[in-house]
Amino acid sequence: MAEIIPILRNLDNFDNQIKILTDLCKEDLESINTLIIEKLDSSVPLISKIASYLVVSGGKRLRPLLTSACFNLINNKTDLPLKHIGLAAAVEFIHAATLLHDDVVDESKKRRGNPTANEVWGNKTSVLVGDFLFSRAFQLMTKFGNLEILKILSDTSVTISEGEVLELSNDKNLEINENVYFEVINGKTASLFSAACQVGGISAKANKNQINALRSFGTNFGMAFQLIDDAMDYASSKNKMGKNTGDDFKEGKVTLPIILAYGRSNSSEKKFWKKTITEQNQKPSDFEKALNIIKKYNCVEDTITRAQHFSNVAVDSLDVFNSSDYKDCLINITINGIKRLS
Amino acid sequence: MAEIIPILRNLDNFDNQIKILTDLCKEDLESINTLIIEKLDSSVPLISKIASYLVVSGGKRLRPLLTSACFNLINNKTDLPLKHIGLAAAVEFIHAATLLHDDVVDESKKRRGNPTANEVWGNKTSVLVGDFLFSRAFQLMTKFGNLEILKILSDTSVTISEGEVLELSNDKNLEINENVYFEVINGKTASLFSAACQVGGISAKANKNQINALRSFGTNFGMAFQLIDDAMDYASSKNKMGKNTGDDFKEGKVTLPIILAYGRSNSSEKKFWKKTITEQNQKPSDFEKALNIIKKYNCVEDTITRAQHFSNVAVDSLDVFNSSDYKDCLINITINGIKRLS
Repeated sequence: MAEIIPILRNLDNFDNQIKILTDLCKEDLESINTLIIEKLDSSVPLISKIASYLVVSGGKRLRPLLTSACFNLINNKTDLPLKHIGLAAAVEFIHAATLLHDDVVDESKKRRGNPTANEVWGNKTSVLVGDFLFSRAFQLMTKFGNLEILKILSDTSVTISEGEVLELSNDKNLEINENVYFEVINGKTASLFSAACQVGGISAKANKNQINALRSFGTNFGMAFQLIDDAMDYASSKNKMGKNTGDDFKEGKVTLPIILAYGRSNSSEKKFWKKTITEQNQKPSDFEKALNIIKKYNCVEDTITRAQHFSNVAVDSLDVFNSSDYKDCLINITINGIKRLS
Repeated sequence: MAEIIPILRNLDNFDNQIKILTDLCKEDLESINTLIIEKLDSSVPLISKIASYLVVSGGKRLRPLLTSACFNLINNKTDLPLKHIGLAAAVEFIHAATLLHDDVVDESKKRRGNPTANEVWGNKTSVLVGDFLFSRAFQLMTKFGNLEILKILSDTSVTISEGEVLELSNDKNLEINENVYFEVINGKTASLFSAACQVGGISAKANKNQINALRSFGTNFGMAFQLIDDAMDYASSKNKMGKNTGDDFKEGKVTLPIILAYGRSNSSEKKFWKKTITEQNQKPSDFEKALNIIKKYNCVEDTITRAQHFSNVAVDSLDVFNSSDYKDCLINITINGIKRLS
């Protein structure tokens, strides 16, 4: 049997760092949560019900935390309007909208250990409530943003949907280029991380140089985060995302560990990948075989190395900021994000 | 056999009026179409392909025409920036996004006589390309709008998605209140008509009174338009919308003719509606029977009377504007919209 790479020893550190950031941003986070709950209200009860199920029930609020942290990283004036609260809620609503639509597109049955909204209420409702959440996000941005922020968030929304379609149009395509994969994960994860950071900074009147630094931090942190997420699916026996190891394999998702493995495989191994991923013809022992090939060619380790690169760039991007608890915490989260798997 | 109410004699008048408006707004419409085509471009080829299929291939461009007409109704200064071009394109993109998602939710196979995008490329792609179009709309608004316009369009997006969920959550419910039906058609049709009119006016620096008039005109014209659309499904043998008479019945859509018929039906007729609509248990002769009951209780005529009310309010809303070809044309379109069925 393929030895599952021993990991998770530092997962608690990542969770701990998130907890430290949550404590640091406690006051903001409470205001953000209050606003989120208020804005989930609708004259149509089904909307409030489903939106609450998704938005209130779970998640670390990582994106709103980034907005809050980046605001506080810069803000030392006490008289600034707290527009970042509304913008953090908008970012979380965009995220929630994409989750609803993603789960429909991926036919997912579980999220964070619970049945997905599409499992409970059906695909149709998920599509429409996703549209509602996206519209609500747009309302919030209009209320709390300025032209610069609206441009960032609308550009980000386009990038997200382009990334999603790019992923779908390369579904089960083993010959997908690594750069296309990077474009996909930039769309699905990094672009919104980056936007979350930037709108926090802009709300705190960050200068051009600082905004560029936050854009780079968010993008690179997001890329590293998604790479580790994709690597974990071939490395941990059961990770803490409510997702089981092997889910991506079972669904035939072509993520970096598979892209690397396929590229390095000999012709009989290539046939195995075509059968299991492209043709979705899998038997129970196939995941173990997949892990063996992935291990043989160091594909998890090399995925982590890619993540390490983005993580390094993210950390160095923060050089322009003065020392603070917020800065330390963002650095520690980035470093420990990688350590989930190294 | 139920006699199908003789109609369509004035349908050409409606189409003619649309043609007259199209000619009046020719220059604007060309600019709008150029911008639409430019903004359908994406680094992801599948997006451009599907979006073009939907947006370029058909439709009267009724919403952009409203934006252009309402701009020109007010504008007599030649030096105004032509922001209404970008906003008209944004409105059309919101419309296209909702069409893509609607067709997924309704499991529609045809639109404007052609196979729907979900039929050709599948539901998943339609969901994601809909998100792209909505994001593009948001980008355009951010570029060409001001805060007032952004608020109108974001509020409208929320109203649209609330209307859609309200409709879905009353799917096949014969006891739906007429007011709930009005809320649904306000969401699915009237709210975007209203927004299209308002943003045209605001781009021409309309005063408060004029903006209120345009909001009322758009909303009421949209309500009348959708009511007639719903009535046509029980009145014309084959209308010009690429939709066959009886489609709503076959799909079990509870529109006003059915709401009125069900409310007026005796107990055996009520059983018929429950069997055919709620339980979707239909045999070929059932549509004829449905038409007979609808005719017995004057439900198409009464739907038209409701539409006439909204049409009257729409026309009177335009009183605040000076005479012009644009004003005449908007009035004629509204009047002839009703005459499609009277």
